[in-house]
Amino acid sequence: MAALRHMFEQPLRIRFAHCDPAGIVFFPQYLVMVNNLVEDWVTDALGIRYADLLAKRRTGLPTVSLHCEFTAISRMGDEVMMGLSVERLGQRSITLQLGCRMGDEQRMSIRQVLVCTSLETHRAIDIPADLRGAIENFSSN
Amino acid sequence: MAALRHMFEQPLRIRFAHCDPAGIVFFPQYLVMVNNLVEDWVTDALGIRYADLLAKRRTGLPTVSLHCEFTAISRMGDEVMMGLSVERLGQRSITLQLGCRMGDEQRMSIRQVLVCTSLETHRAIDIPADLRGAIENFSSN
Amino acid sequence: MAALRHMFEQPLRIRFAHCDPAGIVFFPQYLVMVNNLVEDWVTDALGIRYADLLAKRRTGLPTVSLHCEFTAISRMGDEVMMGLSVERLGQRSITLQLGCRMGDEQRMSIRQVLVCTSLETHRAIDIPADLRGAIENFSSN
Amino acid sequence: MAALRHMFEQPLRIRFAHCDPAGIVFFPQYLVMVNNLVEDWVTDALGIRYADLLAKRRTGLPTVSLHCEFTAISRMGDEVMMGLSVERLGQRSITLQLGCRMGDEQRMSIRQVLVCTSLETHRAIDIPADLRGAIENFSSN
Repeated sequence: MAALRHMFEQPLRIRFAHCDPAGIVFFPQYLVMVNNLVEDWVTDALGIRYADLLAKRRTGLPTVSLHCEFTAISRMGDEVMMGLSVERLGQRSITLQLGCRMGDEQRMSIRQVLVCTSLETHRAIDIPADLRGAIENFSSN
Repeated sequence: MAALRHMFEQPLRIRFAHCDPAGIVFFPQYLVMVNNLVEDWVTDALGIRYADLLAKRRTGLPTVSLHCEFTAISRMGDEVMMGLSVERLGQRSITLQLGCRMGDEQRMSIRQVLVCTSLETHRAIDIPADLRGAIENFSSN
Repeated sequence: MAALRHMFEQPLRIRFAHCDPAGIVFFPQYLVMVNNLVEDWVTDALGIRYADLLAKRRTGLPTVSLHCEFTAISRMGDEVMMGLSVERLGQRSITLQLGCRMGDEQRMSIRQVLVCTSLETHRAIDIPADLRGAIENFSSN
Repeated sequence: MAALRHMFEQPLRIRFAHCDPAGIVFFPQYLVMVNNLVEDWVTDALGIRYADLLAKRRTGLPTVSLHCEFTAISRMGDEVMMGLSVERLGQRSITLQLGCRMGDEQRMSIRQVLVCTSLETHRAIDIPADLRGAIENFSSN
């Protein structure tokens, strides 16, 4: 039986600025929310300041692959829950499962592959030891 | 001697998504932050759900005038404080003073005039009585 | 041998506003570009004004599924070519293949499923006859 | 009698992605449009590649002051004309007049002060000679 993966969760209010003329979340805005979630996961759950990783250590985590299913709409004012868990930790890449739900209703599911890169060369590099250790520690909780 | 105006404040983390290739906040993103602040002020401080005002009551608060001074840069990872106070409450318009500071350093100051409109006609209407009352109550605190 | 699908193409300049602190396109901005491309395809290639479809006919084309591969970075100032072709036309859904390339270098590939909805109910509806006819005509060219 | 200032103009289609749940342009999106216009003015009218100015020469043009009047709404699908002229060229700053109109109807007017900075220090520097010359040449046309 598969163990439940450890999840990082964060409540979020759907805002005017997220919504389109149809009155629902404009799908690229979901990806901005997801990027913010990954950023807070690194800073707050892994304990590695995301801004330092990029600006000081010049190490990036760009997205190389993204698979999204939008299963129900979200409207302005909805108080949703964003969630993140680690599916796979590779040598140079991290595969995340991300989601947005309101109560029991799943709004969106994303599988995102990030690759670790040098921001000087934009080439893939090994995930730094402290980041790797923090992710392993997070996943084993 | 002028009394200090009552202020609605909210902490905010400057994110990757706010920043530009110069590594600092892209100025239109400040206006998205300001729009979010106004939204939360209406919902959380005035007690009138912003989403209902728009979607159910079809009453909007578009911006008609905006004066911004950007006095110091904000970088990714900065934990800033956003603030809002009411400068003037008209028959159909609201003038707000908004700001962003980090500690004692003022990053940005905005004077924004919102006008109350019908979303059916996009014409100015009187500010609804409950919204007016809540703003007067907020300002007199 | 598979026939080459008819493609709608549009040049695009990668802008400051598309790029992140790493100096490359922020991936949600690619989705905004793709949304703009779909909009122009409907208006300019299919001959059905996208704004009328939404605002007057209250018919939407929200995204229900999205699969993106980001294979090479794009930098500010790059003059790229965006492309769109129709993979499948269903009763209520449209599957598109979208891409971004610079010269021969593929930067990004997307498979996007749009579903036709009523903007009154946000429920799936049959693709309107004129839109269906225009898509069939486009694909058979 | 004041001479009419030389103007850089560019047509623009108001898009789904620019619009908010009220079905009109979300005001921070106007500022993104304005930033794009400034970028194209530098690259196409002044003949200095904006991306090189930033990425290679590490010279930025951040906004320090902004005064906007939104006088009429723009809706999705509107084909507007964006315009830019130079009000004042200082030692380290440029004051622009920007606007958006549809036919004879003025939608928005902006006065924007840009300051020339080093992207290494984020401090003001003199406007480079080639940029200054190109702006003088543009303004005297």
